[in-house]
Amino acid sequence: MSRLDSMIRRLMVQRASLDWAIGELGRLPGPVLEFGLGNGRSYDHLREHLPNRDIYVFERQVAAHPDCIPPEDRLILGDFRDTAPAAAQRFAGLAALIHADIGSGDHAASRALAASLVPHWATMLAAGGLLVADQPIPADGLEPLPLPEGAPGRYFISRKAA
Amino acid sequence: MSRLDSMIRRLMVQRASLDWAIGELGRLPGPVLEFGLGNGRSYDHLREHLPNRDIYVFERQVAAHPDCIPPEDRLILGDFRDTAPAAAQRFAGLAALIHADIGSGDHAASRALAASLVPHWATMLAAGGLLVADQPIPADGLEPLPLPEGAPGRYFISRKAA
Repeated sequence: MSRLDSMIRRLMVQRASLDWAIGELGRLPGPVLEFGLGNGRSYDHLREHLPNRDIYVFERQVAAHPDCIPPEDRLILGDFRDTAPAAAQRFAGLAALIHADIGSGDHAASRALAASLVPHWATMLAAGGLLVADQPIPADGLEPLPLPEGAPGRYFISRKAA
Repeated sequence: MSRLDSMIRRLMVQRASLDWAIGELGRLPGPVLEFGLGNGRSYDHLREHLPNRDIYVFERQVAAHPDCIPPEDRLILGDFRDTAPAAAQRFAGLAALIHADIGSGDHAASRALAASLVPHWATMLAAGGLLVADQPIPADGLEPLPLPEGAPGRYFISRKAA
């Protein structure tokens, strides 16, 4: 599989996972939290499909397309490990959806980062809220869900127990 | 359409166009020329599917994934407008396939760049050779071809008259 193939696969499983989660949210209230803005593609997708939700974005350093930079009061800048603890207090039990696209080329480091963040994510989620991530996200109180049909590839969805 | 949607669309039409061209090449001899390495995805795709072809890459400044950097003797560094005239002499009538992914966010500039390069590309192509590009590529001696079926989006394929 070429890097072109794997990028297409990655973006398609990301989109399928997000679209499934967006459809699942229904009337569950609460903000959406995105960890990892990157170039802003998934943020743009979320705000297009969830125009009435507050979307907060966590990012170390903004390098997104200028059209895809969140408003200043929705952007939490800094290393995720530094910003997540305060955010876990601020959003405790509130988030309807968390999307975390935090992987780098270093697989071990990406997994370790996700493992350090997942307890905070579990705290932030509302009962019944969804965590969609590019890394495995095992955690107490989070039920792993299958990927939507027709979405081959690596992405991970969990739901917080109601 | 979100930026995530349009990126998926763009990569899929690029891959469908390249795959179609790769299948068309058959026994037409000659090197492959790629204008615009970017992060190296399409270069990786071409070298995976055309392992016996020489692939020469033109790039202003290499910023590709380390695994996707061509060997030094296959890399022609510099502004395309500066390197294309000498390359047109070097590869005159030889190239089986040229792939040009040269667009930037500035649509007018991208079109102008393609317009300035297409006469050189036409010179480089072998009779029956294919030009696959992300920009419209009208030129004398190049016959525009339809995109392969099931490839919605903007990509452009032409064949040099035999």
